[in-house]
Amino acid sequence: MQRTEIATLGEFGLINHLTKDIKLTQKSSVKGIGDDAAVMDNNGKRTLVTTDLLLEGIHFDLIYTPLKHLGYKAAVVNFSDIYAMNGKPQQITVSLGISKRFSVEDLEEFYSGLKLACEIYGVDIVGGDTTSSLTGFTISITCVGTADEEKIVYRNGAKNTDLIYVSGDLGASYMGLQLLEREKSVFTGDKNFQPDFGGREYLLERQLKPEARKDIVAMLAEHGIVPTSMIDISDGLSSDLLHICHQSHAGCQLFEERIPIDYQTAVMAETFNMNVTTVALNGGEDYELLFTVPLPLHEKMNKLEGIHLVGHITPPEQGYYLVTRDGQEMQLRAQGWNPLAGK
Amino acid sequence: MQRTEIATLGEFGLINHLTKDIKLTQKSSVKGIGDDAAVMDNNGKRTLVTTDLLLEGIHFDLIYTPLKHLGYKAAVVNFSDIYAMNGKPQQITVSLGISKRFSVEDLEEFYSGLKLACEIYGVDIVGGDTTSSLTGFTISITCVGTADEEKIVYRNGAKNTDLIYVSGDLGASYMGLQLLEREKSVFTGDKNFQPDFGGREYLLERQLKPEARKDIVAMLAEHGIVPTSMIDISDGLSSDLLHICHQSHAGCQLFEERIPIDYQTAVMAETFNMNVTTVALNGGEDYELLFTVPLPLHEKMNKLEGIHLVGHITPPEQGYYLVTRDGQEMQLRAQGWNPLAGK
Repeated sequence: MQRTEIATLGEFGLINHLTKDIKLTQKSSVKGIGDDAAVMDNNGKRTLVTTDLLLEGIHFDLIYTPLKHLGYKAAVVNFSDIYAMNGKPQQITVSLGISKRFSVEDLEEFYSGLKLACEIYGVDIVGGDTTSSLTGFTISITCVGTADEEKIVYRNGAKNTDLIYVSGDLGASYMGLQLLEREKSVFTGDKNFQPDFGGREYLLERQLKPEARKDIVAMLAEHGIVPTSMIDISDGLSSDLLHICHQSHAGCQLFEERIPIDYQTAVMAETFNMNVTTVALNGGEDYELLFTVPLPLHEKMNKLEGIHLVGHITPPEQGYYLVTRDGQEMQLRAQGWNPLAGK
Repeated sequence: MQRTEIATLGEFGLINHLTKDIKLTQKSSVKGIGDDAAVMDNNGKRTLVTTDLLLEGIHFDLIYTPLKHLGYKAAVVNFSDIYAMNGKPQQITVSLGISKRFSVEDLEEFYSGLKLACEIYGVDIVGGDTTSSLTGFTISITCVGTADEEKIVYRNGAKNTDLIYVSGDLGASYMGLQLLEREKSVFTGDKNFQPDFGGREYLLERQLKPEARKDIVAMLAEHGIVPTSMIDISDGLSSDLLHICHQSHAGCQLFEERIPIDYQTAVMAETFNMNVTTVALNGGEDYELLFTVPLPLHEKMNKLEGIHLVGHITPPEQGYYLVTRDGQEMQLRAQGWNPLAGK
């Protein structure tokens, strides 16, 4: 029998290969595979469903990830997908595969983070499945949300001349991860080693305890703005903007000087001898919102806080480009974090 | 810090411990943890959500489980939970953690089983998540279904004198598993060994490619029968009947001679020197429906095919009993398969 290695396709290629012939047959199925969440109809009101699978050793390292933070983050990354559809998360189910080295107290810690996130975002835990795992800790969370039919924002609605915005700042979570990985390799073998994270708390928080941008979705709604397309930045600005462009059959122009970067991120990139723009483009796990709005809304958007104009949508034949500080055009590539590539 | 071993609580004890203080805060949350599926409201129409996490080495052994069957079963066990609420499965999301030894063709096999199940049961695959796994194959499926508000059947509605029914027959899946495990230990080390499963196909099919009882739910609806309580038998008749009794604040009396057992199951139990009633009570993975209906429906129920009257509900103070063939009363215990108990 033929054997094709999975690494030859990559994550998106594999999903596309396996699901390309899947059709929607049920009246209630509005949108299937290919957006932040699936969309189902209930007499005009829409139900959104998204799911995330987190595996120990792939998505998190328990050496430096407190279980309470992990519970918080596992919930929040799902809420983020619902907000990215302009929806409201309402319920989650939580399935856990638990390794033998865990105690009941460990799981209490994990659940305390989950519950805190649910309390803050107004979401109920309604079900799940708990089993033992022969190996690492396995977390599968599914989030159900709601949205009005006419307010759902997909990835495929960006139009030529639309403005591209991102919330918050980018790259901090990735630098937080680099910092944790460095300290881990330093203190491995020395039990009394106390890592010094002074002045880098923001980077650690962005990595270990990210927030979903409920506030941005609320602000846009308050000002009557419905984006033409939206996605949350989990794989990296570059990769996620390309998702929007491909699904909208559009090109884009992104301006390097406009990409929002926090001071701590810049300092840490310098320390690690990394290009901070590359970090912001490809780092991922920012959970900021990336969205497009029609050009005529420019002045209205200008008055809003916490969002940044980073570029605009172009015709598809113009491709996907980053305009650098010195005016060069560089092609954008999906170099986001790929857990299926051979490592 | 205190350390309490998880095995001291068991699966249900652990879930209860972690979730006992969880409250429903959202208007749309109708039913949370503790039934076959969670229930959400959408203007009177109800959305059902259930999820299952399947881990290699815990829930399946790839040495004797064809990937196509595994895909089929992974979908069907979720459909079964929706039918057990008297609902209709509509969509699933599929998250996979893929080990490096898998090829694209392996995943095509798995997906072909998933797709076949979805085609047969009329369900759409609408999303998911795919990642690599450092260890075994990880499958997390979430199923969304619908039901009319007044037709949803919970576990907590059984009343004194209600009749207890099961569909199909019990214990075959467990005997299929025993058979596969025995052949595995025989052929380990001998690559040319061909196991002889002649005459035991039914047992293997029940274990490797079970069906959800869509037909039973349809038959009951056709005859205008809404059970007072229902559950699907995944942990075993004994354990699952106790779930109904505990949540309905009721007792039960089950009659050994009425428990439906297939001929192949009985023969195989004899071969393995096992008590066939114990197998039927505690084997699990039958995915048959266990439900209760009011006593006055007795004659109407008598005319239906494919279901078996196995006992009746009693007041809670009368406890949970099996009446054996020789008229003894034995207390029912939840000895169902417990993946969290120390092994």
